[in-house]
Amino acid sequence: MNKNSSNIMALAPNTSNKRETVCIFGTGDFGRALGHKMIQSGYPIVFGSRSTQKSSLIPNDAEVLSHAEAAQKAAIIIIAIQRQHYNFLTPLAEILHGKVLVDISNNLKINQYPESNAEYLAQLVPGAKVVKAFNTVSAWALQSGTLDASRQVFVCGDDMEAKQMVMDIVRALGLTPLDQGSLLAAQEIENYPLQLFPMWKLPILLSLGLTAFFFFYCLTRDIIYPYVYENEDFSFFIAISIPNRICPVLALILLALVYLPGVLAAIIQLYRGTKYRRFPDWLDKWMLCRKQLGLVALAFASLHVLYTLVIPIRSFVRWRISSSTVSQALNNKTEPLNNTYAWLSDSYLALGILGFFLFVLLGITSLPSVSNNVNWREFRFVQSKLGYLTLVLCTAHTLVYGGNRFLNPSSYRWYLPNAYMLSLIVPCIVLVVKFVLVFPCLDKPLTRIRQGWERNPKYSE
Amino acid sequence: MNKNSSNIMALAPNTSNKRETVCIFGTGDFGRALGHKMIQSGYPIVFGSRSTQKSSLIPNDAEVLSHAEAAQKAAIIIIAIQRQHYNFLTPLAEILHGKVLVDISNNLKINQYPESNAEYLAQLVPGAKVVKAFNTVSAWALQSGTLDASRQVFVCGDDMEAKQMVMDIVRALGLTPLDQGSLLAAQEIENYPLQLFPMWKLPILLSLGLTAFFFFYCLTRDIIYPYVYENEDFSFFIAISIPNRICPVLALILLALVYLPGVLAAIIQLYRGTKYRRFPDWLDKWMLCRKQLGLVALAFASLHVLYTLVIPIRSFVRWRISSSTVSQALNNKTEPLNNTYAWLSDSYLALGILGFFLFVLLGITSLPSVSNNVNWREFRFVQSKLGYLTLVLCTAHTLVYGGNRFLNPSSYRWYLPNAYMLSLIVPCIVLVVKFVLVFPCLDKPLTRIRQGWERNPKYSE
Amino acid sequence: MNKNSSNIMALAPNTSNKRETVCIFGTGDFGRALGHKMIQSGYPIVFGSRSTQKSSLIPNDAEVLSHAEAAQKAAIIIIAIQRQHYNFLTPLAEILHGKVLVDISNNLKINQYPESNAEYLAQLVPGAKVVKAFNTVSAWALQSGTLDASRQVFVCGDDMEAKQMVMDIVRALGLTPLDQGSLLAAQEIENYPLQLFPMWKLPILLSLGLTAFFFFYCLTRDIIYPYVYENEDFSFFIAISIPNRICPVLALILLALVYLPGVLAAIIQLYRGTKYRRFPDWLDKWMLCRKQLGLVALAFASLHVLYTLVIPIRSFVRWRISSSTVSQALNNKTEPLNNTYAWLSDSYLALGILGFFLFVLLGITSLPSVSNNVNWREFRFVQSKLGYLTLVLCTAHTLVYGGNRFLNPSSYRWYLPNAYMLSLIVPCIVLVVKFVLVFPCLDKPLTRIRQGWERNPKYSE
Repeated sequence: MNKNSSNIMALAPNTSNKRETVCIFGTGDFGRALGHKMIQSGYPIVFGSRSTQKSSLIPNDAEVLSHAEAAQKAAIIIIAIQRQHYNFLTPLAEILHGKVLVDISNNLKINQYPESNAEYLAQLVPGAKVVKAFNTVSAWALQSGTLDASRQVFVCGDDMEAKQMVMDIVRALGLTPLDQGSLLAAQEIENYPLQLFPMWKLPILLSLGLTAFFFFYCLTRDIIYPYVYENEDFSFFIAISIPNRICPVLALILLALVYLPGVLAAIIQLYRGTKYRRFPDWLDKWMLCRKQLGLVALAFASLHVLYTLVIPIRSFVRWRISSSTVSQALNNKTEPLNNTYAWLSDSYLALGILGFFLFVLLGITSLPSVSNNVNWREFRFVQSKLGYLTLVLCTAHTLVYGGNRFLNPSSYRWYLPNAYMLSLIVPCIVLVVKFVLVFPCLDKPLTRIRQGWERNPKYSE
Repeated sequence: MNKNSSNIMALAPNTSNKRETVCIFGTGDFGRALGHKMIQSGYPIVFGSRSTQKSSLIPNDAEVLSHAEAAQKAAIIIIAIQRQHYNFLTPLAEILHGKVLVDISNNLKINQYPESNAEYLAQLVPGAKVVKAFNTVSAWALQSGTLDASRQVFVCGDDMEAKQMVMDIVRALGLTPLDQGSLLAAQEIENYPLQLFPMWKLPILLSLGLTAFFFFYCLTRDIIYPYVYENEDFSFFIAISIPNRICPVLALILLALVYLPGVLAAIIQLYRGTKYRRFPDWLDKWMLCRKQLGLVALAFASLHVLYTLVIPIRSFVRWRISSSTVSQALNNKTEPLNNTYAWLSDSYLALGILGFFLFVLLGITSLPSVSNNVNWREFRFVQSKLGYLTLVLCTAHTLVYGGNRFLNPSSYRWYLPNAYMLSLIVPCIVLVVKFVLVFPCLDKPLTRIRQGWERNPKYSE
Repeated sequence: MNKNSSNIMALAPNTSNKRETVCIFGTGDFGRALGHKMIQSGYPIVFGSRSTQKSSLIPNDAEVLSHAEAAQKAAIIIIAIQRQHYNFLTPLAEILHGKVLVDISNNLKINQYPESNAEYLAQLVPGAKVVKAFNTVSAWALQSGTLDASRQVFVCGDDMEAKQMVMDIVRALGLTPLDQGSLLAAQEIENYPLQLFPMWKLPILLSLGLTAFFFFYCLTRDIIYPYVYENEDFSFFIAISIPNRICPVLALILLALVYLPGVLAAIIQLYRGTKYRRFPDWLDKWMLCRKQLGLVALAFASLHVLYTLVIPIRSFVRWRISSSTVSQALNNKTEPLNNTYAWLSDSYLALGILGFFLFVLLGITSLPSVSNNVNWREFRFVQSKLGYLTLVLCTAHTLVYGGNRFLNPSSYRWYLPNAYMLSLIVPCIVLVVKFVLVFPCLDKPLTRIRQGWERNPKYSE
């Protein structure tokens, strides 16, 4: 629906049953955009401004008055002014007494001031009911009506009734209010729009570190070693061959790291004999970013698939195959089909395909709109059962790929094993421990602990 | 937004305008988690417990009283106790008279008891207004704040006002209440969290059955036959070659089965001359799981694509190409380009690519968040017009792949036709019938019937 | 959750605290479906009909009365009748005075009547409060409970209280009401279900035009030219080779067109020295369909990937490689590895893979449920920073693919350059201008203008 034109039409409604007037202090971009949107939703708007001269940018239906006059006309006043100018409100304290002040301000840096803007406002005008809201919405999104980014509006405040009034306005504008509790939450709400994927920081830093390590590792083994010993220049391996070694290695390690904290938690619970003690902080943090870890792993797995499928188009591979065929023809001999090789090659490809397929399925179910439509049991089934199956398939894929090369001394250059051998360490540990935990002698007490049973009840006090 | 830290901050708000006190019977995991969450949202909480000694696990801001005392402090009482202990409520019946009792219990099995827990509770405490809610939310999700699974809370109850009060609490906790009607719906709501993809059962069982059938079919034709007659061991075909025969066959059959019920419904309506009689039950069920059928078909199609793209990397395929090239070189002859083959090969690949592309598009539009943003006409356009185009392209892909092999006797081993020939039966029937139904002599009466016209109005009475 | 069976169970609730009675005029498909759904949600329903004889199709719990009698029983009357029969309401005007009339009608064509049906209804019954709603929901979706298509119900009306009552009903049915303002918006709401992807029109028409142009361009260069000069029949190139030239060209051009309007807007703002003047209309329209342009580009890029990965399976390619190998063997010479070629081939493939990977990432973040979960800064980071990186990678992919062929006269057939050369024009312009705009001497004033600073403040009046 082209919201723009509808909005223009719906302006100036001759409504017989008007909504309550709302006052907006400040005629800047956001104040105007919000005013415009609220007029469309049927709210009479009064702007409070230093200069009451009406600019062409202000919606026609809105009045512009002095701050004091405007404030008297409404029960709700939206403060669309920057924090450094808040002190002009002090003289208005009497008029603002008992009014709902909506703080919509944002800062330029995380934790820029010791207290949040909303709390600062509450200190300046002690008689008013301050509510924090709207700071996560952009003026541009309000104006264009294309709310591609979030429709969520975080709301907090100490006065329940005031908060309810603001949440009603939010809902009337077609946005989704989310109650975040008392005004103490304002700092967090103000920091929110300044955050850049905070939950993704750890997984991305970790994968960058591992990528760098494995890049230099493979560089040494696959380019420097042949250059030193065989004087061959394989520098073009940097483009595809080496990324295609790094990606599967990282995908497998990160996928295993998704399931490692669950296994550690089980061991801790078994050891402590209770579930009522908090896990160490690092484990809590780790458990909360498992989804992000898994999605980064999926990204590496997808790149691995693309790099692999592109192999037969590479000019180097074509040259290698063609020259081996030519030399066969010149030597006048045809090699028979090696059945073992055929089995190994086909089965590691098949395992990889199935593993990747399940991995993509896991990724799809982690989309918010999909996970919202499954119940808790289904979500656990997919993320736990199918997740472990994916890990098993991907580990098996790597093991079969290695095949009989593990014990072959030629795969150790400068005593460095192949990168994929290193990648097997974490997943194998996870799978072995998980396998052990499935035995009844461990699974039974663990289930009882998770249902609330305690071995040494002293812990719970 | 890191909800955790905000929650911790927002605890103990010095709110000037408090919400109504809520009482929770039971201090188990879920009771505590719910209490904690409600305190964060500004509700004063009183726990009712047998032992009023306060454990360290109970939120600091909550009181713990005896059941009777706690119940008197609140209008809403959440029963966080297992069904088998409900009878302790009987002596409290007088205190609970007129109160809203929220049943949040779950069972261990589907239809475990003859009546739902909520109805049992209503029988035990006849004077109370019982509302079923919260049973679909997990304690862990409430505590960690990471509601990855559903935010939907099904609510039902006979008293509208009581239901409204509970739905307001649900909304205040940031969850989405869904009114399911009267308390009769409680059984269904209690079964919901125990279900495991009920809509997917039929499509998955069907595809498992077909997979098993075609696996043994292909095993016979492609592995046992050459072993018996030519003594060649192609057992490694099990890894890739045979799955890559089964997947496209299943994808095509299941896709056709998505469109078959629509065609059958049209025939039934034409025959009956009215749309006002219910379809047979099996057809209704079939129509309701069309989306799931289509998504399973898409899964098989995706696997087919991966298995196909991997072909040139297979060691068997490399060996076959290389040995045919070597034998050409040794025989000193070069084959000219066969233009017909080039046409056939390129066009079946192109048809497959386009069909798969449209299929993925259909899959994307069936994501809840995408289908929520299109209107009914757009949804029908994509699912019907584009869907049929996909079916036509995929059927053509299979037909062209077969090419001139259909009449070739060598493709019948033990009188068994190739698997892809069998897969063409259902889609061809669907397309032919659909093509016939498009003719005006049938399309016109059908359209009129669907608009409400009846040939023999007696049916509608 | 199988809503059907729950609905059947929840029918006829013996609720102690009933909702308000709602009257439905008309017993057609939609009226019955809506009545059925509302009974399930606890609303007592009265049907108003010409014939008060009760058909078997009408829900058992509903009464059927004459229009006048039915209207008197309820405050809200849903008009489930076609517009052309509205005039029967005129004699009922007195009874309908002060009632809420809900217009749910749809038209057959966009802008079929000069005024919307809802406004026409308001003229016919001036004393009633007309609210437009429910026209975007289908009867079938209401009945089957499978609301796969949109759950959004657009609501508009001049009376706030009436609108609120209707929105409460919408919410009670499990649907999402969206307030669209006054009754003036009814025309737009009535047109909405008749629209077919209006935002996609421009991108799709544009890409169809470009596809046609490049198809004939490539046909000339790649099929007609060799046929005329070398008498070779490459007509089978139409299936894969030519699409695989068109797709990347279109993907690159369309992706560049996503970022061109932003660059143009910056130039206009710099030139005007203010951001307070509206952009020309064509630029506004262009900016609003950037997301759709990008998704069409992604579709072409995906097709390009599939067409490319399929190359080694093509029978033509296998023949070409095999005959070149055979001729090498017959001439008794092996070509050495050309390191430059290996570098070029590997790096253009690697650039393409990375570009496509980022492109898919952009596509995923544009899914409504994903973009709803990121804040504004994160959304901008992905769509702008990652978007430009994608454009740089894809342009570099094309440049490296061209390699040293740009100056090679043999790539100009009939003076026509290769298609990919043409595709580089727009992206190179965008990237060069963007690069210039990043310089501080231009970036600084632009940032100030975007923060509200004006070079010549006269414009803003």
